[in-house]
Amino acid sequence: MHSSIGKSKWELDTPALCVDLSTLEHNLKKIHTELRETNVGVRPHVKTHKSPAIAKLQIAAGAVGVCAGKLTESEVMLENGVNDVLMTGVNITATKIRRAMELRKKFTGFIQAVDNVKNAHDLQDAAKAAGIIADVVVDIDVIKRSGVLPGSPALALAQLVDKLPNLKFRGILAYDGIVQHHMGYAERKKTALRNFEPIVESYELMKRAGLNMEIFSGAGTGTYNMMGQIPGFTDVQAGSYLFMDAQYMEIGGVHNEKVMDDFTPSLTVMTTIINNNHPNRLITDSGTKAVSIDTPNAIVIGEPDFKYIANSDEYGIITFNESSRTYKVGDPLEVIVPHCDPVVNLYDVIYGIRNEKVETVFEVLGRGKSQ
Amino acid sequence: MHSSIGKSKWELDTPALCVDLSTLEHNLKKIHTELRETNVGVRPHVKTHKSPAIAKLQIAAGAVGVCAGKLTESEVMLENGVNDVLMTGVNITATKIRRAMELRKKFTGFIQAVDNVKNAHDLQDAAKAAGIIADVVVDIDVIKRSGVLPGSPALALAQLVDKLPNLKFRGILAYDGIVQHHMGYAERKKTALRNFEPIVESYELMKRAGLNMEIFSGAGTGTYNMMGQIPGFTDVQAGSYLFMDAQYMEIGGVHNEKVMDDFTPSLTVMTTIINNNHPNRLITDSGTKAVSIDTPNAIVIGEPDFKYIANSDEYGIITFNESSRTYKVGDPLEVIVPHCDPVVNLYDVIYGIRNEKVETVFEVLGRGKSQ
Repeated sequence: MHSSIGKSKWELDTPALCVDLSTLEHNLKKIHTELRETNVGVRPHVKTHKSPAIAKLQIAAGAVGVCAGKLTESEVMLENGVNDVLMTGVNITATKIRRAMELRKKFTGFIQAVDNVKNAHDLQDAAKAAGIIADVVVDIDVIKRSGVLPGSPALALAQLVDKLPNLKFRGILAYDGIVQHHMGYAERKKTALRNFEPIVESYELMKRAGLNMEIFSGAGTGTYNMMGQIPGFTDVQAGSYLFMDAQYMEIGGVHNEKVMDDFTPSLTVMTTIINNNHPNRLITDSGTKAVSIDTPNAIVIGEPDFKYIANSDEYGIITFNESSRTYKVGDPLEVIVPHCDPVVNLYDVIYGIRNEKVETVFEVLGRGKSQ
Repeated sequence: MHSSIGKSKWELDTPALCVDLSTLEHNLKKIHTELRETNVGVRPHVKTHKSPAIAKLQIAAGAVGVCAGKLTESEVMLENGVNDVLMTGVNITATKIRRAMELRKKFTGFIQAVDNVKNAHDLQDAAKAAGIIADVVVDIDVIKRSGVLPGSPALALAQLVDKLPNLKFRGILAYDGIVQHHMGYAERKKTALRNFEPIVESYELMKRAGLNMEIFSGAGTGTYNMMGQIPGFTDVQAGSYLFMDAQYMEIGGVHNEKVMDDFTPSLTVMTTIINNNHPNRLITDSGTKAVSIDTPNAIVIGEPDFKYIANSDEYGIITFNESSRTYKVGDPLEVIVPHCDPVVNLYDVIYGIRNEKVETVFEVLGRGKSQ
């Protein structure tokens, strides 16, 4: 792996996943700058990069900790020096509950979510058996996906967790996944704030009941800068802000209705042209195996008219009317991917690039951690 | 890993990728039975399973060798005891060509594809430098993706390869990727045979020129039983026949216009229900990270009315009007995936199940091998 240090990104064997380090550093700072005037912190979701080394950069830049979707992802982070991990998903089965308690026993910075009464009792029993007090947040339902229903069911669950002797109630989370990709800033903000009304009511109920509301976590890259208006809200779970991708670019931002330019795309796939037999058509070595999906299309840097389709396992298919130059077989291209999270999940390493050269190699230790 | 042997599939930590061994064995035999009356052999594409152990089962069942899409995939197969690998993609860059020659030097059963004149000369130079004679097939263009143009360009390239002293011309391949998923057997057959006409002409030109036509490879699970009509055709590159998936089931087969039932679905994902708060709606722990994509929908075994959407990283969302029973949080479900290849690429192991118990564990050593 070290053999690639110092190499030009244009000479990497392809497909290769790269992150531009200066751009990454810009994005790492930018989210905190944008939120400076608010009381809102950042608890980045690691499913975006799946790399403990990158999580540590986020924490060094001011993040209050990180989020992880799954137990195995949480394990990878904690076991590799990331001290504060909030697991946004629930642990339901006996196997997962036992492992979650082992993890909490080893790492005091592990917090897990609960969204139903039976599960709270199961966690209590396991925490007691493990001889620990486990930290728990209550996940509240926004989009009929995960979470306890808002209002009195949420309050009752929070009070139960607070009362159970081997659980410690730390607050709430609520994730509005669908609204993250709503097109247009103003429309997105209206929907996001409306969707959060029942969550805010639940928060107020809990606060009035005297519960510990130290964590009120939610939101993502699409709504990170809207949450200052939510009373008691503590931190956004943004992930994609770090890398950006074609999906997030097209939603528009507060500064630019057409393209979300709060953050700058830093993640790219280096690919090679392997066939140019047909006019206005180029074939690359990067299909579904390398860029995951093809909507919206991957963006070829420097070639605004190129349309990149990646719906074949092995091949990327580019069609165009206009091209800045003639391409021959063997030429490299650099593309911004449609959706960063699943693409990262296809690779074992991300090359950290500065001034077009490999400066470091990030291991994607959370790759495939879906359990 | 061995700790899971003997466990019930219903007790595996989820998401878990499973293959039913009896069904796998049925499919392994079935393709040869279906092709018994023809001169067509089987050279299965390993991108479907990415497991050397499963490739060996295919060869034991009568396959003439296997296909691999990429160089790294070919390396994994050859280095793990799969002796005959035809790499269907081209090696263009200096790095890949050097590695391909090293591979050929170690393993005499490695054959690679070429689709342009410059590349043939590059391969010749590298083979000479490595002190070997490298086995090469010419890939011919069917769907404007990979391959040299059919007719005289294909003939000229084949003659060049045949003439170059460090290359050995072994024949041709042509893969009609798009037609594999055409709906309806009769329509698909018409299109497949029409698309192959220029390839057959190229074959005839080469044969008349006295070239060695020992390999004429192509086709997949959608067209495997149509190629007996193609003169000189030697082997089908079917992969999905082993596992099947929702995409291939819906195309219809020769025996059943509605569902392709030549082969039986053997690959499933075990998942757990984690939320049932809303009527006619269940949430599972298997989203994009576990089942890859959601079209056509994953099929929940035993629940024909369930519609499974997997467009969220962490969660599967099931909606339904009718259900065979009531489901509670923690209950497992078993689903047939939309498209087997990219799903396998998400996992490190496939559990081999017999009579609902884990009998063996296949390592997905080709996972992530996109270079």
